[in-house]
Amino acid sequence: MICNSISLSEIKEIIEKCPVAELIKIIEEGFVLYTQKKVTVPPVGHLSFKQPPGDVHIKYGYIENDDYYVIKIASGFYNNASLGLSSSNGMMLLFNQKNGEPLSILFDEGYLTDLRTGIAGAIAAKYLAPAKINAVGIVGTGIQARLQLHFLKTITDCRSVVVWGRNNDKSELFKKDIFLKDFEIAIASDIKFLAQRCNLIITTTASKSVLLFADDILPGTHITAIGADATGKQEIDPLLFAKADLVAADSIEQCIDHGDISYAVRNKILNPSKITELGEIIINKNLQRNNENQITIADLTGVAIQDIQVAKYVYISHLKVRNSVN
Amino acid sequence: MICNSISLSEIKEIIEKCPVAELIKIIEEGFVLYTQKKVTVPPVGHLSFKQPPGDVHIKYGYIENDDYYVIKIASGFYNNASLGLSSSNGMMLLFNQKNGEPLSILFDEGYLTDLRTGIAGAIAAKYLAPAKINAVGIVGTGIQARLQLHFLKTITDCRSVVVWGRNNDKSELFKKDIFLKDFEIAIASDIKFLAQRCNLIITTTASKSVLLFADDILPGTHITAIGADATGKQEIDPLLFAKADLVAADSIEQCIDHGDISYAVRNKILNPSKITELGEIIINKNLQRNNENQITIADLTGVAIQDIQVAKYVYISHLKVRNSVN
Repeated sequence: MICNSISLSEIKEIIEKCPVAELIKIIEEGFVLYTQKKVTVPPVGHLSFKQPPGDVHIKYGYIENDDYYVIKIASGFYNNASLGLSSSNGMMLLFNQKNGEPLSILFDEGYLTDLRTGIAGAIAAKYLAPAKINAVGIVGTGIQARLQLHFLKTITDCRSVVVWGRNNDKSELFKKDIFLKDFEIAIASDIKFLAQRCNLIITTTASKSVLLFADDILPGTHITAIGADATGKQEIDPLLFAKADLVAADSIEQCIDHGDISYAVRNKILNPSKITELGEIIINKNLQRNNENQITIADLTGVAIQDIQVAKYVYISHLKVRNSVN
Repeated sequence: MICNSISLSEIKEIIEKCPVAELIKIIEEGFVLYTQKKVTVPPVGHLSFKQPPGDVHIKYGYIENDDYYVIKIASGFYNNASLGLSSSNGMMLLFNQKNGEPLSILFDEGYLTDLRTGIAGAIAAKYLAPAKINAVGIVGTGIQARLQLHFLKTITDCRSVVVWGRNNDKSELFKKDIFLKDFEIAIASDIKFLAQRCNLIITTTASKSVLLFADDILPGTHITAIGADATGKQEIDPLLFAKADLVAADSIEQCIDHGDISYAVRNKILNPSKITELGEIIINKNLQRNNENQITIADLTGVAIQDIQVAKYVYISHLKVRNSVN
């Protein structure tokens, strides 16, 4: 049994030692490979539970001619908080692409999924947010809301934040969170207030209906939509896609299937040919924001290539540490 | 981290202590639950590799209102033998259905997949093979060919076997295998010879074209088709399905998609309404073989419920052993 296992604390140690710019580079490389069709990513596997409510996503794939294939299992069980457990759980599995041998199990408990989602948000902002950000609007008060802000620190100097959440107690906790101590955080009582003040807005909720309406969005705003990662979830007004100058998707295929984009495409508000993949935007300056009045949207559903890239990084870093110890 | 791991040798110890009749009961219960729609089994996930050639199947699901959900990863890398490695590999993962927590990783390296496939073959023979078996015909000489015979020992007293394989050296090894010492094994130079002598035939190859032709099959024969477990694989002449009195499928949905049945259905030789699910046959005596002249076929593509049942059995047995030791 060659297969090793890497604990959550080991994973965190590896990631915390890695500069954010390096993580951004790793995930960017993944998006580019994906857009260049050098990655095999089958449709996401999904299990849904009713009592108690839960979702499991299985994302998997491989880079052509690489050494590995990766399977990621990530679950969300939404009543866990009442049991004192994290709602997220799961693991990443790394196998040898040449013979099928299991190489490593990363017991990340959802941590790496949160991380690579946070990094993808920073990448979207890097290429699509306006040069001068007045304030960052955060819709939602969970872990992803925190990570989005955290990773934005390398992308912008703006430290002014407006947050909106359904639960005011959670907004207060968000405002006081030591992890976000570098930011000045104001709580918005409604999303319109937030939208009028922020030209970079990030939506991070598990909402199943529109939160951010087209009429409230000012010219020059960039929106990154993170929450709608499965059929039935929605945060963004489909009409906003008609108003947008640029619509980006981490994966056109996935976003048309179940992202916020899917509602706009099904309702013929958005023609799929107008969607640009993030990997394309990264390598082609002409596809990035080119003036301060554009409305831009990035729909991020989470692609297995992000998991592959981050799992490989952790595995190889762990091997290096182990070899230097032995 | 509560998640435990169970090694291949521990898994083998547990399974070897379990009577075959008990394993048959466990898998039969699974097929019945599946047919009764008490099991959620999404479509099989699949990764395919070209250089070197390999396949990975991800089968997953859960029994409603059970304690667990299970994800099984099973790979076949067909050039592994030349590297001194087994072609099969993989693992089964057991999670808590109520909160997503990983409970156990069964490092079975494909062993449990081989096992539950062997048991399914015995179940098909139990209900569909003629009462008096003249000789068992085995098409293929690999691990599954061996396991099919092994588990048949509890179903029939017949110990006369005719084997056919593409590679004569492998047929000779099969004939001499100590694991099959209870059988008298003759090697057939062609499949027609085998089909004329055997009224129970089991096909276990990775063939991509027809091996067993309709014209060669005598009345009173039962055929269990194991090999065609993915798109592109085929062993059975589609015309044989027109000749058959009874066509069984482990999963109608999967067999129509990628089993031997799929060719007969696509070519309008077999009407899907004529296919009976194995779980239905197990509980309804009227659907089982009822005379010695019928031609019957069971198409087995392998269903996640088999993996769920066997993974649960190993996990619970392992817990009992551990608790009795502590």
